[in-house]
Amino acid sequence: MKSIILIVLDGVGDRPGKDLQGRTPLQAAYRPNLNWIASHGINGIMHPISAGIRCGSDTSHMSLLGYDPKVYYPGRGPFEALGLGMDIQSGDLAFRANFATSRDGVIIDRRAGRENRGNEDLARSISIDMGEYRFRVRSGVEHRAALVVSGPDLSDRIGDSDPHREGLPPERIRPTDPSGNRTADVMNAYLDEARRILSDHEVNRERMKNGRLPGNELLVRSAGKVPDIPSFWEKNHMKGACVVGSPWLKGLCRLLKMDVFDVPGATGTIGSNYSGKIEKASALAENHDFVLVNIKATDVAGHDGNYLLKRDVIEDIDMAMEPLKSIGDRSVVCITGDHSTPCSFRDHSGDPVPVVFFTDGVLNDGVHLFDEFSSAKGSLRITSYNVMDILMQLAGRSEKFGS
Amino acid sequence: MKSIILIVLDGVGDRPGKDLQGRTPLQAAYRPNLNWIASHGINGIMHPISAGIRCGSDTSHMSLLGYDPKVYYPGRGPFEALGLGMDIQSGDLAFRANFATSRDGVIIDRRAGRENRGNEDLARSISIDMGEYRFRVRSGVEHRAALVVSGPDLSDRIGDSDPHREGLPPERIRPTDPSGNRTADVMNAYLDEARRILSDHEVNRERMKNGRLPGNELLVRSAGKVPDIPSFWEKNHMKGACVVGSPWLKGLCRLLKMDVFDVPGATGTIGSNYSGKIEKASALAENHDFVLVNIKATDVAGHDGNYLLKRDVIEDIDMAMEPLKSIGDRSVVCITGDHSTPCSFRDHSGDPVPVVFFTDGVLNDGVHLFDEFSSAKGSLRITSYNVMDILMQLAGRSEKFGS
Repeated sequence: MKSIILIVLDGVGDRPGKDLQGRTPLQAAYRPNLNWIASHGINGIMHPISAGIRCGSDTSHMSLLGYDPKVYYPGRGPFEALGLGMDIQSGDLAFRANFATSRDGVIIDRRAGRENRGNEDLARSISIDMGEYRFRVRSGVEHRAALVVSGPDLSDRIGDSDPHREGLPPERIRPTDPSGNRTADVMNAYLDEARRILSDHEVNRERMKNGRLPGNELLVRSAGKVPDIPSFWEKNHMKGACVVGSPWLKGLCRLLKMDVFDVPGATGTIGSNYSGKIEKASALAENHDFVLVNIKATDVAGHDGNYLLKRDVIEDIDMAMEPLKSIGDRSVVCITGDHSTPCSFRDHSGDPVPVVFFTDGVLNDGVHLFDEFSSAKGSLRITSYNVMDILMQLAGRSEKFGS
Repeated sequence: MKSIILIVLDGVGDRPGKDLQGRTPLQAAYRPNLNWIASHGINGIMHPISAGIRCGSDTSHMSLLGYDPKVYYPGRGPFEALGLGMDIQSGDLAFRANFATSRDGVIIDRRAGRENRGNEDLARSISIDMGEYRFRVRSGVEHRAALVVSGPDLSDRIGDSDPHREGLPPERIRPTDPSGNRTADVMNAYLDEARRILSDHEVNRERMKNGRLPGNELLVRSAGKVPDIPSFWEKNHMKGACVVGSPWLKGLCRLLKMDVFDVPGATGTIGSNYSGKIEKASALAENHDFVLVNIKATDVAGHDGNYLLKRDVIEDIDMAMEPLKSIGDRSVVCITGDHSTPCSFRDHSGDPVPVVFFTDGVLNDGVHLFDEFSSAKGSLRITSYNVMDILMQLAGRSEKFGS
């Protein structure tokens, strides 16, 4: 049996760009190591989820790890909480939240002037226990925050307190079906208490004294209940590790009970310590069955719409991949993206992404370059759901179905 | 309407091998007829079940014949019985079984010294009726056997009598849920009776006299109930025949009420009468709608890890295929594998296999060679589930979905 290293170049797929004379960033990049791996591997294109679906990094990573997001995706609330570094557990209920400004019971600014200073204190003051329920709030960028509720029998069949417009009072939380009745009561009691605490909070008194907008209302939306999700071990029968930068992805891996590792100099964005991440993954593959690596910089450059930057990032990542060429005797390596982030679109598209599987003795297919065009000449037309099955069979780890 | 001939080269897919200068057995073989068919056909790769799944011949053949094994696969017990040439029917319960040696109620050898001589007599002696239930045992290789139980309301929600270790008594059969209660009682009564018969059997008395281990206990495991499976005619609306060597596959075809034909000199292994099988299939296609041919020798060579032998087997099979070139006016021919059996792995892998569909006037795709690399340059990326649909539409036998 071999170990498995799955390297996700976030948003690496792209479309031809004028800035690169009609080539994609992958095509334009000097990428001898990616091309060597393509030449010695089995290549193709992968549709994240399925052909034409525009997916998030969250849903795509779940499916790459063997979890159908149609079954297990808990919605945006829990991923917002994971993204702020909060721990969540099966059964928890999580919300996206805003600090907002109300006056005489009416929301006059849903974003409380986009203030951030002091929000950590505000969040801590409303992280409280009430009876059997535990409420934790963490501040994010500007006015943004997340709320995680733990306790018995929580339901996400409830609406938002956010009225989504100014000039209205905050909504009472309403159940969307009878199973949400109790949770709606719990939430309304909590939001009343939070309002009481915030209205009297020193940070807000200070803001008002200076003529700034107080964060005296917590508006919550996108309730999502964390499903009863099997651990990575239970699902795939492998000891899993990850080397990833994004807080939400670390949180997802913790939720799946994978071992989460940090690498010095790994920033989760452009200029990260790519070599350190690949080296760490190679080392981890000695005592783990499966290692996930995510490199975020390609996605960041795509969202920036910067073709030249994306090309340069790919060149840097390629240099870091050199050591992978010599581990085919003991590991199976897959390199792909979780989706495309075309510079022309500056967001995730539903295009297919290149994929290569490499290990010693694999049925290679005569593809010599790793990019959107060349990989499409390879053998495979797969979806993200197939990746784990292919990796496991190449690693000699599959159970036979039948005999 | 044309007739259909589906030729499964068992385990034909492979990976590049040093013994063949980095080529696969298919690539290395002189195969003018396979290549002619590829040149005149539509080509591609087929994932048995789905991409990356390592499947058995049993599950793969079921899906090639149009039966989803997730719905219809009865487990290993029934296929073990089919493999020993036993007839099984819907509703029957079948087990894998061992003749074992017990002393003072404790299993001292789970394999009864791997003795085979006399096992047919032992099996016949415990093939009995008890009340409404009929028990049939057949001896297999060495100590191995199969047990088929027929009777009302049988359930496979029961455990094994095999303790899976020496030094323990045989297990009482226990239900794994309440629906197995009655079947567990029936089985325990039978196994008590079998023990009584075996302990006193002349074959065993003779063995003990000579200091050899008696087969005085039948250990059973892998209970599987044969599902209510529609016949090949009911499923596909075609009169089906098969020319196959493996006993389990003959049994499957009988279960599906297909016509099963033997060919003189067809052995189900290397050196079989390949020409006889292809000629028989061509003849059967005159008065049947569908003919399945399985040639096992490629799989045998793969399990042996013998690249040169697998290449030679393919060359012999290729010679036998010459007559297929002239039947495109009246038949559709598909040639593929049920899975890969790479010589380097010596077992079934989850790699895709080459596939070609040939008939006069088919939309051919410029592929000129039949092998893992060249076929991958063709039009098709399919799974085993798609094969029957493609065959039927090329034969002009499909119902329109919609209007």
